[in-house]
Amino acid sequence: MPSAVRFHGRGDIRVDHLEEPKCGRGEIKLKPAFAGICGSDLHEYTGGPVLVPEEEHPLTHQTYPVTLGHEFSGTIVAVGEGVEGFSPGQRAVVRPTIYDTECSACRDGCEQCCTNIGFIGLSGYGGGMSRYIVAPAGHFYALPDSISFETAALIEPLAVAWHAVNISPMKPDNNVLVLGGGPIGIAIIQILKLKGAKNIILVELMEKRKKLAETFGATHTLDPREVDIPKEAHVITEDKGVDLVFDTAGIQGALNGVIPACKAHGTIVNIAVWEKSPNVQVNDLMYHEINYMGAALYDENAFTEVIEALAEGKLQPQKMISSIIHLSDAVEKGFQELIDHRDQHCKILINSQA
Amino acid sequence: MPSAVRFHGRGDIRVDHLEEPKCGRGEIKLKPAFAGICGSDLHEYTGGPVLVPEEEHPLTHQTYPVTLGHEFSGTIVAVGEGVEGFSPGQRAVVRPTIYDTECSACRDGCEQCCTNIGFIGLSGYGGGMSRYIVAPAGHFYALPDSISFETAALIEPLAVAWHAVNISPMKPDNNVLVLGGGPIGIAIIQILKLKGAKNIILVELMEKRKKLAETFGATHTLDPREVDIPKEAHVITEDKGVDLVFDTAGIQGALNGVIPACKAHGTIVNIAVWEKSPNVQVNDLMYHEINYMGAALYDENAFTEVIEALAEGKLQPQKMISSIIHLSDAVEKGFQELIDHRDQHCKILINSQA
Repeated sequence: MPSAVRFHGRGDIRVDHLEEPKCGRGEIKLKPAFAGICGSDLHEYTGGPVLVPEEEHPLTHQTYPVTLGHEFSGTIVAVGEGVEGFSPGQRAVVRPTIYDTECSACRDGCEQCCTNIGFIGLSGYGGGMSRYIVAPAGHFYALPDSISFETAALIEPLAVAWHAVNISPMKPDNNVLVLGGGPIGIAIIQILKLKGAKNIILVELMEKRKKLAETFGATHTLDPREVDIPKEAHVITEDKGVDLVFDTAGIQGALNGVIPACKAHGTIVNIAVWEKSPNVQVNDLMYHEINYMGAALYDENAFTEVIEALAEGKLQPQKMISSIIHLSDAVEKGFQELIDHRDQHCKILINSQA
Repeated sequence: MPSAVRFHGRGDIRVDHLEEPKCGRGEIKLKPAFAGICGSDLHEYTGGPVLVPEEEHPLTHQTYPVTLGHEFSGTIVAVGEGVEGFSPGQRAVVRPTIYDTECSACRDGCEQCCTNIGFIGLSGYGGGMSRYIVAPAGHFYALPDSISFETAALIEPLAVAWHAVNISPMKPDNNVLVLGGGPIGIAIIQILKLKGAKNIILVELMEKRKKLAETFGATHTLDPREVDIPKEAHVITEDKGVDLVFDTAGIQGALNGVIPACKAHGTIVNIAVWEKSPNVQVNDLMYHEINYMGAALYDENAFTEVIEALAEGKLQPQKMISSIIHLSDAVEKGFQELIDHRDQHCKILINSQA
């Protein structure tokens, strides 16, 4: 029985047979239920190794091949010595970020900016796209019964979006523009709606993504090939300009094109990982005293807050899941499908036990 | 008697004979004492018209030739009908920024970001490099006796620096790095010292500027050709990284090179006007959740606060003045001198009556 989706090099992801891992002291062994395929997984496939360690990762001490899957839920099957608060049979979700406590960012409480940041499912410790995974207990969070395993596989990308909104100066009644309607853009739209944004304007080319965004609360969806974005944004905001932009796209023209849509003292939050450093019209940022800030991953608070919001039904992200596939089909119906038919999908989940 | 330094086109600044202007309703007529040559004046000379209007400016309704000089002090010689609080013989300084009250930035109280921003001494209404100037009364501020006319000609660039520090998240005991030791960099260093910064690190190539910066409070001056800036910044800050960067240089390599010197959640404030949009390593900004923000000019508060700080002797910027020349020598000993021997100067003042 194939047991793990592993990265062996650029363009070379295989479903391998692996030994069942042993649960050591301070560790938890989980039987993953569902694991999402993330944009970073695709980056590894098409252009990696990027985050996957080619040389020994300073915290996991592993190099590839590594098992993929950092967005996942499952059932605890064993608990190592010294672990408290968890027991076999318990449902759980995993926060994949790995950081030390030594670097200056960690010392300042910004663990998401750790110099040695790593990820379960990219940097070692196994991953969610496998029959079993063993990882340090600190990564595990109890999953409330009201959250399905499928929905729980969305907690990680939702936490990325939640954190970005958290550290932004967003206030209720703000006019907000989102660049890009992929999973993170869609997640941000839901959170903006929950937090009381006034107008939520999505800039996106793909029809299906625009429709999905509308079901999640986008008040306007604009295609930059059809309308002048700053002009339209000024019409929608009654000539105020948007207070806030979330860039999940990472496209130079889109970024520069949206600067004139911002009000003076507006903020642009970058969540995109850029393939190439953009040429930024910094004079335009300056003349309007616009803040350009980065949001990286999430801290532990954001992860917990997303679990709470889901448990209380405040977030209902289920429609983000565009298909669920078997682990053995991960490459063809997962990675390759997302590359070939990106416009047809938001999030593909892998059933790690099927 | 030559009476005004005027811009006639790129590379063409002349000292012209002009009629003495008349003071109309709501206006004040000033006999300028000293006017500073600003980096923007040089930009006009070498690459203009930039801010100088080629087509009618929406607020001044003028096109070039225009009289230059937007950093100046002087004596009021006439006060138009309807003007209160000023009288002939009074000493004054002029805030050159011209804005309307109609655009969305102005409505939000960010007049310095006005869509139609203009400047006395660049966009029309005459300028400080002339025997007389007439401008609307709202631009005039009474000059306390304790501030000399020479020092008062520095109020405008000091206000640029003051505003940048004001809108930054600077706190006492912050470690701050300044890129570029020109007049604005030197002004920022003084203000940082006044506001209690811990380490003030200047990155600058020119020896004379480094020395001047030290007299004003720079604790370290680094030459990027000699040392690795991020490494040195981490040594100076005991591996914390700098809290804040002020970029007055506008050089791509310097900007990207300084990002790794910042702590997580640090801030980079751009005051530079960039000649070419830089390629910015936005992923580095993101991974460390660094804010990149623009500071444009100053608001009326900053202008007033600088006057107060000078009156109280809290700022002592006199050493910024590297030479004082006659109005008739403005081109040769002023503009051209700054281009040919930039490393020898901080601020050249023109004696507008000599």
